[in-house]
Amino acid sequence: MSSLLTVGSVAFDAIETPFGKTDKIVGGAATYISISASYFAKDQKIVSVVGDDFPKETLLDLKSRGVDIDGLQVKDGEKTFFWSGKYHNDMNSRDTLVTELNVLENFDPVIPASYQGVDYLMLGNLAPTVQRQVIERLEERPKLIALDTMNFWMDIMMEEVHNTIKLVDVLIINDEEARQLSGEYSLRKAAKKILKMGPTYLIIKKGEHGALLFSGEKVFFAPALPLEEVFDPTGAGDTFAGGFMGYLAKTDDISFENMKRAIIAGSAMASFCVELFGTERIESLNQTEIYDRMLEFVDLVEFTIDK
Amino acid sequence: MSSLLTVGSVAFDAIETPFGKTDKIVGGAATYISISASYFAKDQKIVSVVGDDFPKETLLDLKSRGVDIDGLQVKDGEKTFFWSGKYHNDMNSRDTLVTELNVLENFDPVIPASYQGVDYLMLGNLAPTVQRQVIERLEERPKLIALDTMNFWMDIMMEEVHNTIKLVDVLIINDEEARQLSGEYSLRKAAKKILKMGPTYLIIKKGEHGALLFSGEKVFFAPALPLEEVFDPTGAGDTFAGGFMGYLAKTDDISFENMKRAIIAGSAMASFCVELFGTERIESLNQTEIYDRMLEFVDLVEFTIDK
Repeated sequence: MSSLLTVGSVAFDAIETPFGKTDKIVGGAATYISISASYFAKDQKIVSVVGDDFPKETLLDLKSRGVDIDGLQVKDGEKTFFWSGKYHNDMNSRDTLVTELNVLENFDPVIPASYQGVDYLMLGNLAPTVQRQVIERLEERPKLIALDTMNFWMDIMMEEVHNTIKLVDVLIINDEEARQLSGEYSLRKAAKKILKMGPTYLIIKKGEHGALLFSGEKVFFAPALPLEEVFDPTGAGDTFAGGFMGYLAKTDDISFENMKRAIIAGSAMASFCVELFGTERIESLNQTEIYDRMLEFVDLVEFTIDK
Repeated sequence: MSSLLTVGSVAFDAIETPFGKTDKIVGGAATYISISASYFAKDQKIVSVVGDDFPKETLLDLKSRGVDIDGLQVKDGEKTFFWSGKYHNDMNSRDTLVTELNVLENFDPVIPASYQGVDYLMLGNLAPTVQRQVIERLEERPKLIALDTMNFWMDIMMEEVHNTIKLVDVLIINDEEARQLSGEYSLRKAAKKILKMGPTYLIIKKGEHGALLFSGEKVFFAPALPLEEVFDPTGAGDTFAGGFMGYLAKTDDISFENMKRAIIAGSAMASFCVELFGTERIESLNQTEIYDRMLEFVDLVEFTIDK
């Protein structure tokens, strides 16, 4: 069983969807990633920062899931990162209502000495400069580094995005981000260009349309389950990344074949995530539910052609 | 080998895409469907109408592909249906520039006596009243009736659409049409409602995102090949339908399992269609190319989960 280090935000979110709205609830990329990965990886670590307004129980809950929180800084007298957003009726687009960086504004990702030698590294969405700092501060290169980023950073510091993704093995972005990063509308062409920027693997998330994995000339298309209802899409992408990296850390196999399975694991986790607000649904899953959901993906695309 | 009757437009199109534009070229739903199906079904019939401006060579070409054109009316002194459209840069949306119904305006779908007893019926996009007339004029119900329709008819005669789809086995529409027909955004919910309207099978085409097949509680997700370039999407949906029905007629097996394969056949044909303007690419395929393309779909989604 290999170890997985996740770096990313631990935050408060307030979410409004056509189905209702929440007060401030716990969110953040690293939260979703760690919870999702905890169903696969048993040796996890986290580097993040919160203010003293953040609930202790949530930190203890992460700990009880096997996540080492020595790298989670709690800043006295400061406030936790807060994001608020409202989803449109189609649930595919959203408006950001509030972004309060708070503790994230001057986040210095300190790596505890005990974290050195970690096997897998997941860099959740953060400034590309901070993501690079983490890589530089690890004395030994992890076996696999995956990175998520967003349009936001491409808009304001594209060069830094390039400098950072050059250093990673797996880039995980959505279709719009792939188009912006490559300047190509066709995802196949976009993938070709992006794979020349450094990463060996590119995962393009297409939301309700599934995900694509590219590496060299190889391509894999993972479906998304056609769901009756998407209740709240917040965190689905991070939950996907968590399932993906958790599965890789558990199996310790980074072949293309196993990455396909890891993508199915991530997709299964994301399909749970959207069923309720925030992290609620992914907090209380069991192994049978997850395994059964993964088998649904097998059934969904299974067909035979006489060879 | 079973017989396949296709009813639909045979037309002229003028197409503009970001890659260039065409003069008047041969198009029409029945043209794409028949050409596409001809790689699978060897006993085809067509019911349609053109003016005397329509090139005789195209009719002879259809004949040479094994399509009985006795039901293709040529109206002296009248003009062929003409459509002109311009695709936007994303190739997913288009503006109709010109629609001249011409001979289609008073189309009376006469069924030659020799067509009676046909095994499979494909109703390409036409007024739902005309589609129903065809079903009523067949003395014996075909083994399987598939129907394509469009938003246009839902906008102006939704009741007629309902009255007609009630009579068919397979409804083939795109995601927007499924949403309009059902009033549901979620495709899973839309499918549930539509399957209660009459059809036993529902195929929802999602363009570059693949297609979904629903029947009862069963669902199948067919991927689309991630293509480097979509040169011209015109006719891709009809080419899909042609490959689908051609495959069913060839194999004469309407089980859910075989419908999956038929969808892959249709998807493979559609992936060729978009590579060049109009019918150009699908006119000159060979069996090996088609088979290899179908195997690409197998590779694209193949993965294993330990059961």
